[in-house]
Amino acid sequence: MALNTGKILRVNLTSGKVNTETVPEKIAADFIGGRGYGIRYLYEELTPGIDPLGDKNKLLMLNGPLAGTMAQAVSRWMTCTRSPLTGAFARSVCGADFGAWMKFAGYEIIIIEGKADRPVYIHLTTEGCRILDAGEIWGKDTKETQGWLTQNHGKNTRTACIGPAGENLVKYAAVVSDRRTAGRCGTGAVMGSKNLKAVAITAQRKIQLADPEAYDKLAREQVATIRDNPGFLNHKEWGTTSTQDVTNAIGIYPVRNFRYGQLTDYEKIAGEEYRKLRVGDMGCYSCPARCGKVHTVKSGTYAGAHSEGPEYESIWAFTGPIESSSIEASIAADQLCDDLGLDTISTGGSIGFAYELYEKGLLKKSDTDGLELIYGKHEPMVALIKKIAHREGIGNLLAEGTMRAAASMDKGAELYAIHVKGMELPAYEPRGAKSQGYNYATASIGASHCYGYAAQDIFGSPEPHPTDRFSEENADVVIYNQDNTAWHECGVACAFSGGWGWMDLFGKMVAAARGIDKYTDNAYLAKVGERMFNLERAFNVREGFNRKQDTLPKRLLTEPLHTRKAPGEGQIVSHQDEFLDKYYRLRGWTKDGIPAPEKLKALGLDFALKDITKSRK
Amino acid sequence: MALNTGKILRVNLTSGKVNTETVPEKIAADFIGGRGYGIRYLYEELTPGIDPLGDKNKLLMLNGPLAGTMAQAVSRWMTCTRSPLTGAFARSVCGADFGAWMKFAGYEIIIIEGKADRPVYIHLTTEGCRILDAGEIWGKDTKETQGWLTQNHGKNTRTACIGPAGENLVKYAAVVSDRRTAGRCGTGAVMGSKNLKAVAITAQRKIQLADPEAYDKLAREQVATIRDNPGFLNHKEWGTTSTQDVTNAIGIYPVRNFRYGQLTDYEKIAGEEYRKLRVGDMGCYSCPARCGKVHTVKSGTYAGAHSEGPEYESIWAFTGPIESSSIEASIAADQLCDDLGLDTISTGGSIGFAYELYEKGLLKKSDTDGLELIYGKHEPMVALIKKIAHREGIGNLLAEGTMRAAASMDKGAELYAIHVKGMELPAYEPRGAKSQGYNYATASIGASHCYGYAAQDIFGSPEPHPTDRFSEENADVVIYNQDNTAWHECGVACAFSGGWGWMDLFGKMVAAARGIDKYTDNAYLAKVGERMFNLERAFNVREGFNRKQDTLPKRLLTEPLHTRKAPGEGQIVSHQDEFLDKYYRLRGWTKDGIPAPEKLKALGLDFALKDITKSRK
Repeated sequence: MALNTGKILRVNLTSGKVNTETVPEKIAADFIGGRGYGIRYLYEELTPGIDPLGDKNKLLMLNGPLAGTMAQAVSRWMTCTRSPLTGAFARSVCGADFGAWMKFAGYEIIIIEGKADRPVYIHLTTEGCRILDAGEIWGKDTKETQGWLTQNHGKNTRTACIGPAGENLVKYAAVVSDRRTAGRCGTGAVMGSKNLKAVAITAQRKIQLADPEAYDKLAREQVATIRDNPGFLNHKEWGTTSTQDVTNAIGIYPVRNFRYGQLTDYEKIAGEEYRKLRVGDMGCYSCPARCGKVHTVKSGTYAGAHSEGPEYESIWAFTGPIESSSIEASIAADQLCDDLGLDTISTGGSIGFAYELYEKGLLKKSDTDGLELIYGKHEPMVALIKKIAHREGIGNLLAEGTMRAAASMDKGAELYAIHVKGMELPAYEPRGAKSQGYNYATASIGASHCYGYAAQDIFGSPEPHPTDRFSEENADVVIYNQDNTAWHECGVACAFSGGWGWMDLFGKMVAAARGIDKYTDNAYLAKVGERMFNLERAFNVREGFNRKQDTLPKRLLTEPLHTRKAPGEGQIVSHQDEFLDKYYRLRGWTKDGIPAPEKLKALGLDFALKDITKSRK
Repeated sequence: MALNTGKILRVNLTSGKVNTETVPEKIAADFIGGRGYGIRYLYEELTPGIDPLGDKNKLLMLNGPLAGTMAQAVSRWMTCTRSPLTGAFARSVCGADFGAWMKFAGYEIIIIEGKADRPVYIHLTTEGCRILDAGEIWGKDTKETQGWLTQNHGKNTRTACIGPAGENLVKYAAVVSDRRTAGRCGTGAVMGSKNLKAVAITAQRKIQLADPEAYDKLAREQVATIRDNPGFLNHKEWGTTSTQDVTNAIGIYPVRNFRYGQLTDYEKIAGEEYRKLRVGDMGCYSCPARCGKVHTVKSGTYAGAHSEGPEYESIWAFTGPIESSSIEASIAADQLCDDLGLDTISTGGSIGFAYELYEKGLLKKSDTDGLELIYGKHEPMVALIKKIAHREGIGNLLAEGTMRAAASMDKGAELYAIHVKGMELPAYEPRGAKSQGYNYATASIGASHCYGYAAQDIFGSPEPHPTDRFSEENADVVIYNQDNTAWHECGVACAFSGGWGWMDLFGKMVAAARGIDKYTDNAYLAKVGERMFNLERAFNVREGFNRKQDTLPKRLLTEPLHTRKAPGEGQIVSHQDEFLDKYYRLRGWTKDGIPAPEKLKALGLDFALKDITKSRK
């Protein structure tokens, strides 16, 4: 069985030099791939204290050992770098086809170093790698950019690129591939700081596996296992477009910048409402879940808005923070973020921060370019998204994220900056899901919902043990979730697929892909997860982080959470007479509720006429 | 293609005479089968004004044209009679195998007339029908009764029987088959009034179909359609044991005798909590959903309690009315009702009524045999169930149902009797789901949730058009639901299967089963539904019903509904320091959150030691 540890493509944008390397067996054994490789190489190669947006920072793109194969939910990929938003380790996971295409081109890691002296893009094929001029696409949005690259390099091309937000070094700019994004941590800004507009790969399917026969058998077993799994089928049906039904119900849907746990008008944004605007679905390479639900707005202010998504986090980002219940605005905002290359969570969080500052008088109409940031009004939110991406007016302040924006303002603003380590909080209220909250506080990258998702708090998952979601005792559960997530992300396995019943096959699959047997031991995988998490922590410690930054925002530690009464409060049945009049009329019955003779005849019930006539007197 | 309209077994318990008849083609064409046959024959054969518990009433048992076949979710059966609880038309649907066994024995209708002069049971085989002495099982619970009958007649025997509640003419006694019940309307009391303990059928699979080849093809198509349907898979996974997650969230889970729409301690009875006690599942004949989830209580007061169910309505019946959040008590209560032969909904409703009378001082401890009916206390509820079934003490009053019990008391009690036409309300609060409420008000049998289930209000179903659940304008939706339900119940199709994507096959399937082509027209089916509903109305009109009884209880027309704040209200993250101490300790990190050298070494991260040591000073 041939060893297959994965190849590295190293591109230096300062020198223009390109070379390839092979991952040593020891690193493969200890770190498996994906995020494991990400932290391992970043730790080794990055000088502590460098400017995340300077030429000394490096941007890594990583798929995993299983990418591009017929197995499901394992072709995801990620960016790793030092985050300009947090200063800490950054990893940002993305979907679509790009991870598979990296594999087809022969690579598991692309390390981008230095800084180009003009806008460029990287074009990679199985023939080689070129650094090309991006003058024609610099300034273009991500859709136009990808279209241009496909037109120039053919339909077998897949792309990861940035939009105007990345070019303008917005601290939470995203990297976009198809309509999926590596959203969090501002890795798009790192790409922009290198004058790198895109990485385009033109390739056809080609896979390297240590033991193709064994792998094939395992992959078939994986596919068969997933096919009928209820979690998979539910995810296929809904994606995450109905998660708000759960989180709002239990009071952990953050509203008005984390003051309330429920949206008053929740029903207007229920999963079923999004479904009404659904026009299709999209998925990642070799995954039949196709969980990216596509929505189109048919009428009104946002008519024509069209987005893959919003998924749950983005549904929240464009409703909760400003207490809007406009599905249409959320679709338009989501589309804008994908086009402009912005992380939706930090965008929504920064806007929610601005709305509260406006409410408290810390921002005035003269500060907001005339926008009235009043809860429920979504037009200013949509305007702010554009301003942020282009760093126009108030957008220039908000493009720094809430931590830096607050620090640059009056002291009172700090309470309203809802972040951990500079990264804005996602759509789960920590006061109502405390293990999830403590994951935010301790995750290597800042407030990430998926760095150790506390499904125990939110969906009652039983492993390693059930939690009381208000308890602050479950450090063991937080650690279990974080370490598990770490080794899953060596895959790079989709986070959702963790609940589809196949994770017991994972170790065997990576063993067959790599030719490294020890992965088949589950205790070993857990150790890899712990190793990764510890090395990330060491990375952060080296950058100056310690206990002090492991903290939830002050609001959550000092202000009680408020929930809302259910929408039915105060309801009464008040028009029974009118209802019965209408019901009887539609039934063809008299005002007394007796079927009229004509109705009985029309239904062939003539034999009942005599009884009815009697009752009518 | 041979006509196959179904056969009737007529058993007169007064005379002991038994004969068989064939359903005429005209009736088959107009009413299809199942509930259609039920109302058609009952209308023709019952004299208006007779005593529902007298010998002039008749009890019909009906399966449908598809029962016993390989098709799914179509072997359900029902009882039809004049209800002793409401005085109106009664139909009560049941599951398990009995419907298929009726077909194997050759029948679609069993009409039971007259009254035996001593306890008897009917034993039916393909050889014939005998009326046998039931002296040995009279007084026994339904489990013992069924066990005795199986022992006496062999394992190919299936039974429908009553428990002590039916014998004691409790107005809402059920007919029980296996662990499923024809619960509502008190049809078990009618059976008891005839001194009929059970109907037992010993038979082996044998089906009559007009066009077996065509039917077989359609049934295969039906099975294939259902297999991957998400609604089916979700139902298979959960049954109805998680419906409270939805209804409580939107504030329509009736609490404290319909004063609140939410349970304070809801999380303790969430679907996931029931799942923890799940030990298996059971299903109806030829249905792979197996939606009857079986629960066992492992410890505490109710240790050993074991029940198929509770399903949603019973979960509610033994939590909401008395505001208990004890899953264990609900399982014990559900088991008792199945054993004693009681409708869980009316039992829970009557007990909730008693608790409120106790709160208001209209019932005193001296009236309740010393029981303290205080909200949250579930032991008295369990005690009351036994008293009701045996008509002991306060149980004798509650065995009459809330309408009659209130009428026999001080005038003030009437406000607390929550019923329509004498039948207690199920687990959907009408003030928060008004089309569902108006279905209660107008359904032929009284307050039934499934006589025209308003999935539009509850789950946002889009047909015939979406509803605002607080609107009282949707008479058309109520009618659509009621008429649809009516023709589905000719099947007898399972109510849940309506959402499994196969209903377009229904007409073709019954056409192939009967040899009657006109069923294939969907407009025709709708007309059958309307015809049935109108004939039921004519039946009720003949018994004196009119607009006056089409009313929701006074409370819902006069008192505003109250909801509750979500459980997270007032929560704060208050122990962050303690959490971090524990987290770091479990991680093997220092108090400052720095990985300890031993930990790094244990993980093979020696290369990171120097950076860490520097940070630790």
